[in-house]
Amino acid sequence: MTHNQLIYLDHAAATPLDPRVLSAMQPYFSDQFYNPSSPYAPAVAVRRAYEQARHDLATAIGGKPGEIIITAGATESINMAFNGASGHVVTDNIEHHAVLNSAKVRDHTIVSADIRGFVPVLAVKLAIRNDTQLVSIALANNELGTVQPIRDIAQVIKDERQSRLMRGDKTPIYLHCDASQGVGQLDVNVARLGIDMLTINSGKIYGPKQVGLLWTASHVLLTPLIVGGGQERGLRSGTENVAGVIGFAKALQLVTTHRKYEAERLADLRDGLQAILVAAFPEAVVSGHQKHRLAGHLHIAFPGLDGERLVFLLEAKGVLVSTGSACAANKGTRSHVLTAIGLSDEVADGSIRITLGHLSDVANIDLAGQIVIDTVTQEYARLKR
Amino acid sequence: MTHNQLIYLDHAAATPLDPRVLSAMQPYFSDQFYNPSSPYAPAVAVRRAYEQARHDLATAIGGKPGEIIITAGATESINMAFNGASGHVVTDNIEHHAVLNSAKVRDHTIVSADIRGFVPVLAVKLAIRNDTQLVSIALANNELGTVQPIRDIAQVIKDERQSRLMRGDKTPIYLHCDASQGVGQLDVNVARLGIDMLTINSGKIYGPKQVGLLWTASHVLLTPLIVGGGQERGLRSGTENVAGVIGFAKALQLVTTHRKYEAERLADLRDGLQAILVAAFPEAVVSGHQKHRLAGHLHIAFPGLDGERLVFLLEAKGVLVSTGSACAANKGTRSHVLTAIGLSDEVADGSIRITLGHLSDVANIDLAGQIVIDTVTQEYARLKR
Repeated sequence: MTHNQLIYLDHAAATPLDPRVLSAMQPYFSDQFYNPSSPYAPAVAVRRAYEQARHDLATAIGGKPGEIIITAGATESINMAFNGASGHVVTDNIEHHAVLNSAKVRDHTIVSADIRGFVPVLAVKLAIRNDTQLVSIALANNELGTVQPIRDIAQVIKDERQSRLMRGDKTPIYLHCDASQGVGQLDVNVARLGIDMLTINSGKIYGPKQVGLLWTASHVLLTPLIVGGGQERGLRSGTENVAGVIGFAKALQLVTTHRKYEAERLADLRDGLQAILVAAFPEAVVSGHQKHRLAGHLHIAFPGLDGERLVFLLEAKGVLVSTGSACAANKGTRSHVLTAIGLSDEVADGSIRITLGHLSDVANIDLAGQIVIDTVTQEYARLKR
Repeated sequence: MTHNQLIYLDHAAATPLDPRVLSAMQPYFSDQFYNPSSPYAPAVAVRRAYEQARHDLATAIGGKPGEIIITAGATESINMAFNGASGHVVTDNIEHHAVLNSAKVRDHTIVSADIRGFVPVLAVKLAIRNDTQLVSIALANNELGTVQPIRDIAQVIKDERQSRLMRGDKTPIYLHCDASQGVGQLDVNVARLGIDMLTINSGKIYGPKQVGLLWTASHVLLTPLIVGGGQERGLRSGTENVAGVIGFAKALQLVTTHRKYEAERLADLRDGLQAILVAAFPEAVVSGHQKHRLAGHLHIAFPGLDGERLVFLLEAKGVLVSTGSACAANKGTRSHVLTAIGLSDEVADGSIRITLGHLSDVANIDLAGQIVIDTVTQEYARLKR
């Protein structure tokens, strides 16, 4: 069974490697395999290609190459962002577990997202204490697709920094934004967002898995999580993943270049799908912020049905969707996000997450819509018997 | 310029991806790209392939699949091995910087290797204190190729553990062995070695870069370095690098299967090369243990010459060698290993590291030998003028 025969609607969980990305990586597997730290010319050429990739990554987010730390993915980037914070940290209750678990081993305050999964700026502002060193808010929620008011939160951090400066308090405060979801659909420019640290994951944007970056503004002081040969300016040691990073840079370049077109295309497809599902089932509940939402996300509940059962019934008909985040799905527990925003058990348990992406087109979304309608209709009929 | 036209003699710094490894990885890039934590059958198939790879990795080293933690390479594995130690640690002065830097942030004792790069078992025994929790010794040194007496050191650790048990002291003590160099040439079976933790790096055995494993015996208590979605039994979070790990498993399987043949082949080639170089230059100094040495390693000094200059002169003639470890080479400083074992400045500065591997054969080693002889002869002549 390959994705060519299936309708893949779980792009938030994983994305296929873009063939153009694989082409960019190919020369660095068996041919230009040299250690970029070796002194001879072929290795120096590999170092140049690696640094060019870093440059391209920086350019894509409006940062400088010297501000990029290459990691083995978003989870490591997030752990690193928290590693520098010795004081109090602030985050919200619908973050990825990498953020929540990093926060929980520190003195922390966790603010509540509203029922749309929107993090109120005021709640963040009120949670900040004199000893707060890090605020970490995702750009967009991976289950609901809700896009957070990062620019406004960044302003709160800037005001706090200014006020500390005025009273001679040198405690640093940084805003870290996990943009694992949202890159390729939203404008991810570090200057425009006004943030201090940014996490991006290659595996979510049609790049190789286990590659990511942490961007940090030049004023941010970091502590390495992994020490050794001193790669990545001593902040992250280990022989460089040359092919992976070149692939990541190509992937980021591609999704950034085609972002506006792709976001519109996905929003059109998603809106059409949402419209026919809501028309067919007026009792359906669409979650997430209806205005500030990722273009490819559709989180929809059919109250009274079992979302997990729906996932398997849809799979049997060739449609791959998710009940929530893949991590939570794997553990058979109710999503912490849906619990946190206060969805009723009936709505939470009856929900599926549909996420569109490169593999989505008019034909397969139309077909998927019909299959969802048939399946949900049959399930409601079965329950009424 | 590709490695086909060059004679690559720096296999200890980096290895080309084996085409069979790339073939094994290929299906998992753009086709079977699913998140192994997703619930539907195609993702479950990916999970099975991933777990089969873990099984193959475990089998290759004589461990159990549940004892393998997948990491982003040896540096992370080493950092993780140290992360569990809250007490005193012991290592030696010619370890990789990942080990030395991990030791130095803890209460530590660093024992001295002898001039052959051999770590005396007695020195390790004497360094162990009542509060020692970790001893970390590499299987083989990456510069000299000297193979350490791991089994004997393991016996020292076992005796210490037994003696603590007898007096009711529950302080754990583990032996960690970094086998980044040596896998594919030496017998790396965890039971036969008698160790508690083992690090292996995929990028050194013709597998993809930034993939590695930490094997830990079931009695070892670890603390995660990276928290998040709870992958790898909660010990190392992050969406799994499916293609990379499948490639790593294939690479380890291949080098393990062909180990005896390859080790003999490389030792023959290396011994032949060493013989003609020593015959041509009686003043040449071959470093490393002459009996316990990796088959592909030849660390040779031409006293009075400049090793760095030799590297570039040889490169101009198509022969790629190294002055020492790639990390040190990159920083333009004298290798900490050569300094530690007490080589004279003249010998240390005049040395090059030649490491043979898959890309070596009779023809190109013969040619390389002639090129080294010509180059060194010219250099000595130039200095005498």
